[in-house]
Amino acid sequence: MKDELRQLLESCIENGTDDDLNALSTLIKGVQKKITYKRSTFIDGILHMERTFDKDTCEISIPINPIINNNLNIVHGGITATVLDTAMGSLANYLLPEGFGAVTNQLNIHYIAPGIGDSLRCKAEVVHQGSKTLVISGEAFRSDGKKIAYATGTFFIIK
Amino acid sequence: MKDELRQLLESCIENGTDDDLNALSTLIKGVQKKITYKRSTFIDGILHMERTFDKDTCEISIPINPIINNNLNIVHGGITATVLDTAMGSLANYLLPEGFGAVTNQLNIHYIAPGIGDSLRCKAEVVHQGSKTLVISGEAFRSDGKKIAYATGTFFIIK
Amino acid sequence: MKDELRQLLESCIENGTDDDLNALSTLIKGVQKKITYKRSTFIDGILHMERTFDKDTCEISIPINPIINNNLNIVHGGITATVLDTAMGSLANYLLPEGFGAVTNQLNIHYIAPGIGDSLRCKAEVVHQGSKTLVISGEAFRSDGKKIAYATGTFFIIK
Amino acid sequence: MKDELRQLLESCIENGTDDDLNALSTLIKGVQKKITYKRSTFIDGILHMERTFDKDTCEISIPINPIINNNLNIVHGGITATVLDTAMGSLANYLLPEGFGAVTNQLNIHYIAPGIGDSLRCKAEVVHQGSKTLVISGEAFRSDGKKIAYATGTFFIIK
Repeated sequence: MKDELRQLLESCIENGTDDDLNALSTLIKGVQKKITYKRSTFIDGILHMERTFDKDTCEISIPINPIINNNLNIVHGGITATVLDTAMGSLANYLLPEGFGAVTNQLNIHYIAPGIGDSLRCKAEVVHQGSKTLVISGEAFRSDGKKIAYATGTFFIIK
Repeated sequence: MKDELRQLLESCIENGTDDDLNALSTLIKGVQKKITYKRSTFIDGILHMERTFDKDTCEISIPINPIINNNLNIVHGGITATVLDTAMGSLANYLLPEGFGAVTNQLNIHYIAPGIGDSLRCKAEVVHQGSKTLVISGEAFRSDGKKIAYATGTFFIIK
Repeated sequence: MKDELRQLLESCIENGTDDDLNALSTLIKGVQKKITYKRSTFIDGILHMERTFDKDTCEISIPINPIINNNLNIVHGGITATVLDTAMGSLANYLLPEGFGAVTNQLNIHYIAPGIGDSLRCKAEVVHQGSKTLVISGEAFRSDGKKIAYATGTFFIIK
Repeated sequence: MKDELRQLLESCIENGTDDDLNALSTLIKGVQKKITYKRSTFIDGILHMERTFDKDTCEISIPINPIINNNLNIVHGGITATVLDTAMGSLANYLLPEGFGAVTNQLNIHYIAPGIGDSLRCKAEVVHQGSKTLVISGEAFRSDGKKIAYATGTFFIIK
């Protein structure tokens, strides 16, 4: 496996453009982060998520780079969904007492403006906390401050 | 950059688990695919998407591996959203005449069952094709045939 | 109360247009239906719902008249939502064993074309039946067959 | 028509319960309101909507009565949708320059708590105002202050 990895990398180095090599750097650094900081998921590392919690909010920021773009060269809606869902789910889990967790039951996203610029920041807030579900909202902003998406989701509370 | 990449890889090889090395293999092979087959996006390569079009449907399949899982070890809802959105948007673009494209305006997803098993398959179908928007539905299935998500989205038609 | 009702009606008869009197006729006939056929709700009577169940579907039709229109003289989106939600919820209840009921937890509607013509027909189908929730889809059609709305909803199963 | 209306009313008076007569009173008063105050729609009158605009919000309140309840004796989700959609659409229209109007393209509603008590109040706020669409959010509260629903919708701007 180890030699296979080295050969894979050499093949990419030989044939890839600068963009491709930058992408590889971002990806391998993401895995390195996952290894070093024992991040819970690869997605967390690869997207280079920075997470902060406040009283009733959770914010996650990620850098924007070609890896997460669609073929129009703007952030893929699925990546925005991934960061929104992660921020919203993290907040849900943060608010629940120990021994309980939350899973996404439904997610609705309005895409408002193209995701461009240096970074993407998602902020989750509680709309409703019940005994069986939480409803959470999430906003996504780009680095110039423009809101690019607005989401709401239902999260099921599980043991 | 090239030597930096080699050092990054060695650092991961030294400290990573088998899972980490498998993840690296999947990621670098994804970039290689992007380079070799001139895939339009890194996401397409990294998720190893296989895309097929039928008359009025588009299907995308991806293998399931730890890279795309959340901390419960099931496919991250954002990844399911990414594949659904890609299949739905690809269908929208496929149906439009040359010179026109489609961008996601709104996406609603019901998560029904955990994404586990070997692969994830998303199938998009047209609900409505208008002059300004398309409404597309998408279903996600896992390899045992169980439906794991159902989505609908509004796509804006742009020139 | 009875005399008050008679006076109210006379005041409307005196000052109303033909449209207003037709609306009154529809409304009072709706209450009469509710009384005579012991319909479970006033909404059911006033909207003159006709409901049919098939194996896995529920259809509800209503006549279109000025009472249910918005100020653009097309069916109010809230009325379409009401008939869709009723058909979808009726199907959910129909599918559940005795002693269980279903309540709407979330409803997403795509409005596709204006509701005009003689009647509105909504057809609900099951997307997923689980142990805690059902996901149901609903389509709304007008009398010329054109689809005017597409909805999906999550229904909670309660005892 | 006039005599038919009188006979219809007498038939209801004869066979109806107190609840039925109260419902009739609410309905006929609603039509009377529509006639007297030249309300733009019957729905507006029948639901006895009270509308207020602030800088960037629109609020609509309605009394709760058996007419708008479902068979569980709580406000029908479709009625909540109707008042939310009306408040959200009214705000959209209020914000647009003369000569432009807004139509609901998509509406997503989270139902949070049962609609009971004396009245229902819906408050709409702007999430995003673009050149082609507005995204509006709406909250529904009952008279004890509890939030019973949260909605977001996309509104198309038309001439």
